[in-house]
Amino acid sequence: MTRTARQLAALVRGELEGEGELSISGVAGLADAQEGELSFYANPKYKAALANTKAMVILAGAEAPPRGKRTYLRVPNPHLAFAQIATEFHPPKKHLPGCSSAAHVEPGAKVDPSATLMAGAFVSKDAVIGARAVLYPGVFIGEAARIGEDTVLSANVVVLDRCLVGARCLVHPCAVIGADGFGFAFDASTPAHIKIPQAGIVRVEDDVEIGACSCVDRATTGETVIAKGAKLDNLVQIGHNSTVGPMSIVCAQVGLSGTTELGTGVVLAGQVGVAGHLRIGDMAKVAGQAGIMGDVADGATMMGAPAFSQRDYLRSYAVFARLPALSRELSSLRKRLEALEEEKNR
Amino acid sequence: MTRTARQLAALVRGELEGEGELSISGVAGLADAQEGELSFYANPKYKAALANTKAMVILAGAEAPPRGKRTYLRVPNPHLAFAQIATEFHPPKKHLPGCSSAAHVEPGAKVDPSATLMAGAFVSKDAVIGARAVLYPGVFIGEAARIGEDTVLSANVVVLDRCLVGARCLVHPCAVIGADGFGFAFDASTPAHIKIPQAGIVRVEDDVEIGACSCVDRATTGETVIAKGAKLDNLVQIGHNSTVGPMSIVCAQVGLSGTTELGTGVVLAGQVGVAGHLRIGDMAKVAGQAGIMGDVADGATMMGAPAFSQRDYLRSYAVFARLPALSRELSSLRKRLEALEEEKNR
Amino acid sequence: MTRTARQLAALVRGELEGEGELSISGVAGLADAQEGELSFYANPKYKAALANTKAMVILAGAEAPPRGKRTYLRVPNPHLAFAQIATEFHPPKKHLPGCSSAAHVEPGAKVDPSATLMAGAFVSKDAVIGARAVLYPGVFIGEAARIGEDTVLSANVVVLDRCLVGARCLVHPCAVIGADGFGFAFDASTPAHIKIPQAGIVRVEDDVEIGACSCVDRATTGETVIAKGAKLDNLVQIGHNSTVGPMSIVCAQVGLSGTTELGTGVVLAGQVGVAGHLRIGDMAKVAGQAGIMGDVADGATMMGAPAFSQRDYLRSYAVFARLPALSRELSSLRKRLEALEEEKNR
Repeated sequence: MTRTARQLAALVRGELEGEGELSISGVAGLADAQEGELSFYANPKYKAALANTKAMVILAGAEAPPRGKRTYLRVPNPHLAFAQIATEFHPPKKHLPGCSSAAHVEPGAKVDPSATLMAGAFVSKDAVIGARAVLYPGVFIGEAARIGEDTVLSANVVVLDRCLVGARCLVHPCAVIGADGFGFAFDASTPAHIKIPQAGIVRVEDDVEIGACSCVDRATTGETVIAKGAKLDNLVQIGHNSTVGPMSIVCAQVGLSGTTELGTGVVLAGQVGVAGHLRIGDMAKVAGQAGIMGDVADGATMMGAPAFSQRDYLRSYAVFARLPALSRELSSLRKRLEALEEEKNR
Repeated sequence: MTRTARQLAALVRGELEGEGELSISGVAGLADAQEGELSFYANPKYKAALANTKAMVILAGAEAPPRGKRTYLRVPNPHLAFAQIATEFHPPKKHLPGCSSAAHVEPGAKVDPSATLMAGAFVSKDAVIGARAVLYPGVFIGEAARIGEDTVLSANVVVLDRCLVGARCLVHPCAVIGADGFGFAFDASTPAHIKIPQAGIVRVEDDVEIGACSCVDRATTGETVIAKGAKLDNLVQIGHNSTVGPMSIVCAQVGLSGTTELGTGVVLAGQVGVAGHLRIGDMAKVAGQAGIMGDVADGATMMGAPAFSQRDYLRSYAVFARLPALSRELSSLRKRLEALEEEKNR
Repeated sequence: MTRTARQLAALVRGELEGEGELSISGVAGLADAQEGELSFYANPKYKAALANTKAMVILAGAEAPPRGKRTYLRVPNPHLAFAQIATEFHPPKKHLPGCSSAAHVEPGAKVDPSATLMAGAFVSKDAVIGARAVLYPGVFIGEAARIGEDTVLSANVVVLDRCLVGARCLVHPCAVIGADGFGFAFDASTPAHIKIPQAGIVRVEDDVEIGACSCVDRATTGETVIAKGAKLDNLVQIGHNSTVGPMSIVCAQVGLSGTTELGTGVVLAGQVGVAGHLRIGDMAKVAGQAGIMGDVADGATMMGAPAFSQRDYLRSYAVFARLPALSRELSSLRKRLEALEEEKNR
């Protein structure tokens, strides 16, 4: 498959600067691109990579360095245009509709005839599988769960009883939606931890992506919610009754305790931990490995454990790195002060 | 399903204060409860939620605020009574006994006729599946492994060769019991990491819950043990030859290295990491994300990485947050001291 | 199965000191070993365990304490010799070749007749399964993926389209190779996160071990690489376009962001997090839970988050632990200084 630079410019409504008839066969990052490929430049940090790339066509904003003999497609958001062109070259995989004879569909389940059920997929009674949904081998759908149209559940994904997954979602292998929340009451008389039934559900809204081996626990009562357009990376833990707000980004290995709410457009970097019963405000950003122990204001940027403002954290951490010197100086001052005091008292 | 307040009082041996004939249809937290539902009050932190709840019946201890026109059920442990009443409304799911024709049972395996094996479950030779045990689709049971009575293994759970799972356990989807411990010897001559065979097993005792995508590695020799009544959340890692003591609570994303022992009733909050060859004493508590690098005394409360006493850690961390100011003050003192010294030497 | 001490000495080319006809029935650590077993002594830290062990034969280096009435096998690397003898007692499991009638092989897939495909394994079209490879139940192999000879994929492992797994690899249950990298471009006009197609692959070279529930994401374009002889523990996350260098050791719950490169023989302890677009040099070591935010030099040892030299980190952390005292001393010095200044100005 190839496209001319002119065709790609039209696709992303970009302004062509250079050779429109160049034939492009694929896309890649600046460093990896080969001749005949298109790349993008969106960050001055990659000026050197731009200078050295073999890519023949570059998606670039107004601020890009002079194009030399390369061809530029000028667009307002090069990263976004790159996503669009990459999708042109690598469209989502098509699946033949139909239910494998080796899939298991319990009586009472409703599977849309345009859906794809591969061998070894299992759909429990009263579950509903929407139009053009795809269930890979090993997928388990619990009783009365609902999977929206055009949603793809990759191999060995588990969606338990009554949970709801919206339309156009993509769930990666071995993700688990709707396992029990972690709740026990302690009975000192036995002694034993007595299980609190987890009677709620998980509701995953439309256009959500959930990474491999990520776990979204069902609510104790009510709902755990992954709101529209949110994206979860791999190995993420979402505790019972929590909410991940619309378009929030949750990177790999993040853990949310129970009954915590992320606002709209929140970004949690990798391995962040969030305590329970908190709210993280809209558009807040949390640095990797931070531990959130209290509410976070809209738009805040947090770091550390327990986390506070990233700017302040980095300032404290800079002093932390020279604490041994600081401690030595304090000792030295004490001695000098003692000398002065002694002199005075003489 | 409904129960009267009086019936529920009898169930938990509570003292009824108010309207015994109220018809209750379900349970929920104070904030989420609807009319006709029961909730509980166990912590003064939720006084405001108590004032505003729509719940008509409240499980409460002696210290609860005046009940007003609500109905109270007085009990010594409201959280525990809530678990009991929630179980009345949401009893554990029943499964029809029997082995699906699409389950795979190797010759030599012993499956109790009262057990449930769903389509796609796999039981290897010489394995033993106890009475009323439930194996969901995608469950794999290795050779000579044993699953106790009334234990439920959810979808895609893996229990490898010779591992033992006790009675009344609940294992959530994609948990892995008995994968190889992580052990290699370095051969500098090749060079290569040479695998040390992991010849031991995992022993999970009775009444244990193991979360989704959690991994309990088999011992190199001997046993890795999850003792009676312990509860593990999702995405937990238990290294080879470690022991999780009875009734210990291990929250999501905790990692234990090898040959580490948790005592009785230990609580590890989310994302805690524990180095190898240590002992964490009975009833010790470890704050989220802490890194345990040495033995922990019985009853201690630890925080930080490397962890020490939580009280001391929080005091140090309070100073950490104002380190830039402290550093500036130190500079200022030095200058003032220099001025005094100069004057003296003049 | 038993072996004499003399036979085992020959196996590891060790020098026998003591009773060559002793019959040995197994191996264990010093603390766990029973009579009739062999153990090893490689670290002076275990001198007490050596004194108390029931093991009758000990693999030991030149520096071991006097053997008393025990039998020693002197070898240059006791840990490595232990691995070799343990493998003699616990050889890798043999599998009968052949494809279960309940395995699913799509037309166009090539499965070597000596490979083992258990019930419920699924091989997509154009995939290639090498000689003596073993696919446990629930394994999913995507289109045109290739699995090398003698590689074992345990239960519910997922290898997605076009990914390559080399020879003699061992992949533990529920590991996921080739799920999409986590990449989106933000479209402010909708607003929405637009998926960047993940068109690259994962290449796992020979002799690699990948732990249970670990996730290695496919590259956006190009390859994510796990190089020859690298060993990954459980619940590890490897982001798109990253490289784990030859013989590197990646402990449980480590997370690598995208486009990061580990050199040769790197060791990352448990729960380490590494930011994207970095290089960690050959033989570098990173302490548990560290957060790597910049390049790491060859051979460095790092700790903390953001990480710096472990030696320096521990020195700073020692002062951190006494910050409250340091802060009090600073206050005291200020007051004493003020007293001197006041006196001077009187």
